[in-house]
Amino acid sequence: MREAPNEHNTQQQNLPLVVAIDIGGTQLRAAVVRGTQLLSRASALTGKKSDPQHVLPRLFDLVQQVIVQANISLEQLAGIGIAAPGPLDSRTGIVYDPPNLSDWIAVPLRDLFQEQYHLPVYVENDANAAALGEYMFGAGRGVSNLVYLTISTGIGGGIILDDKIFIGVSGTAGELGHISIDWRGERCNCGNIGCLEHIASGTAIARLANQAIAAGRGQQLANFALAHPDTHNTLEQQATNMPLVSGANEPVTIHARTVALAANAGIPLAQQIIRDAAEALGCGLVSIIHAFNPTLIILGGGVMQMGALIMEPAQRIVAERAMHVPRDAVSIVPAQLGSDVGLIGAAALIYYNTAQAVTSP
Amino acid sequence: MREAPNEHNTQQQNLPLVVAIDIGGTQLRAAVVRGTQLLSRASALTGKKSDPQHVLPRLFDLVQQVIVQANISLEQLAGIGIAAPGPLDSRTGIVYDPPNLSDWIAVPLRDLFQEQYHLPVYVENDANAAALGEYMFGAGRGVSNLVYLTISTGIGGGIILDDKIFIGVSGTAGELGHISIDWRGERCNCGNIGCLEHIASGTAIARLANQAIAAGRGQQLANFALAHPDTHNTLEQQATNMPLVSGANEPVTIHARTVALAANAGIPLAQQIIRDAAEALGCGLVSIIHAFNPTLIILGGGVMQMGALIMEPAQRIVAERAMHVPRDAVSIVPAQLGSDVGLIGAAALIYYNTAQAVTSP
Repeated sequence: MREAPNEHNTQQQNLPLVVAIDIGGTQLRAAVVRGTQLLSRASALTGKKSDPQHVLPRLFDLVQQVIVQANISLEQLAGIGIAAPGPLDSRTGIVYDPPNLSDWIAVPLRDLFQEQYHLPVYVENDANAAALGEYMFGAGRGVSNLVYLTISTGIGGGIILDDKIFIGVSGTAGELGHISIDWRGERCNCGNIGCLEHIASGTAIARLANQAIAAGRGQQLANFALAHPDTHNTLEQQATNMPLVSGANEPVTIHARTVALAANAGIPLAQQIIRDAAEALGCGLVSIIHAFNPTLIILGGGVMQMGALIMEPAQRIVAERAMHVPRDAVSIVPAQLGSDVGLIGAAALIYYNTAQAVTSP
Repeated sequence: MREAPNEHNTQQQNLPLVVAIDIGGTQLRAAVVRGTQLLSRASALTGKKSDPQHVLPRLFDLVQQVIVQANISLEQLAGIGIAAPGPLDSRTGIVYDPPNLSDWIAVPLRDLFQEQYHLPVYVENDANAAALGEYMFGAGRGVSNLVYLTISTGIGGGIILDDKIFIGVSGTAGELGHISIDWRGERCNCGNIGCLEHIASGTAIARLANQAIAAGRGQQLANFALAHPDTHNTLEQQATNMPLVSGANEPVTIHARTVALAANAGIPLAQQIIRDAAEALGCGLVSIIHAFNPTLIILGGGVMQMGALIMEPAQRIVAERAMHVPRDAVSIVPAQLGSDVGLIGAAALIYYNTAQAVTSP
């Protein structure tokens, strides 16, 4: 665990150039980055062949592309920061079988990149990298103890304690999407029962909407989705899509963002589904507050684009349920870095780890 | 947060004498302690008048008693360590309105003792002090990252991270009995819904047994309790007692220990109640493992005297539900220090804080 600089004591223009890589289940992204500035960027779909043999050459291609685009040479780079899906161990850079990539069984990602580029390489799980990005450059600047939650397809957590990323003894601490809030509930993809992710993620919102429609309780919502096909066309949304057939046997894909639009349009089922997910999120926040007693909780990820639809019920549950002392100590705020948080967080890994190399004895 | 010595590098006979105080909702205790050795001890019932004006003079009396019994003078003491119910802030020694004491509103416990004795005084919540005791002298020796849970009348948590007590930004981190495992369940005394404490504590076991009997589903268990009145006579048990009337209108008090005896005697209802509580505990452990990824979880408190009745279902749930990597990294073991853990933990506060005074720059 390392001391990190933040914007208060590090001018961004003095930061070195780095290559940032964000490996997602949907997209592979790379960029040349200085601070929060992306000098060049490139991306590719992860695709179905997401095993290391297919993904690694394409990551190397993306790195080549962004270096050429930025008109720099490898020698100008301070390192390569990689945000990847967990579980992984950031101390060794080994990735252990993430559920949304195929056949990544103990892949030595750091060493493979070091052999390729002969540069310092740091690997961190995507939520921890995003937490670091928000801590150094976003909503967490100047805050030594914070919890970052990304609410998206899944729910991930990243924790900063005493200005260090808290990774636990095998690098997997902060799996806050997989704390159970319903111990006799449904099974989550991770194997646990009643996980926060299973109840409050974008996938959960989409699943509940589709289940309601399939059960005949959501014709108004299905009609709304059919009337708004343009809300279905981004990669991030596809990750939470599910096909279904409307009452008229017309195929519909409905996802979390469509449910949010329907809620804003006044459709009660959509409002109820999102309020339930937001209250479940609030319940998870109460547990996080009781366990970690942080100064700040930062909420990011695509679902938070729903704004007050999510934030208000979640805040209300925290106000109703959390213990007085830790509740009064914590602020709950939206993330600031937007959809590039993965790349900015990956880049921040170099600043975070390099600062340690300079300042530690 | 301070570095602590442990038995590996500190011989107990070289440790200084300290006075330890354990303030509980049922009992007030004091002892003169060296390491794990109690040279003298004294106790009193907390009683119904548990406000500071009534409790503080009695604590001072207990201190006087144990000093006289141990035949030492105040000048021989390295300090006074106090374990008290939370919420409290160990950095200031201020106790904030614990639910099982009356009218302790922002009581400056540390300063009051320092004024009385002119000795170093450290105050920590009881679960954190017990965690420190187990870390320095019990099941956690040599382990830098551990979680201690006490399962008793309530459920409390104490967390050691990188050899330091993790207290959070306002001193209340580790309230692990108040993570919710049933977000739409019943309200806990703390105000949250579905807390682990509400479902898996000794009080919960007793409550469920009494509810079953009151609902006419527990005549066999009520008869067992009536036939075993000698199981009802300790102070610790009284804390989880509830009066009830058996089917024959004969008053019965049944508590968690009686339910355990009935389970061991083969009464199915008792077995079911304890298995449910133990599985709920296991569910809480999964969340703790996912959030903290510790090396060790130590389970203490009166309920753990039930042994395998609690430990086996809890371990099974962890094996079934926790993620592979953090599950393989953690051991779950019983506490070693027994019912004096509060006093030993309170004493350990002096060694922990004094070591820092010596070793920090």
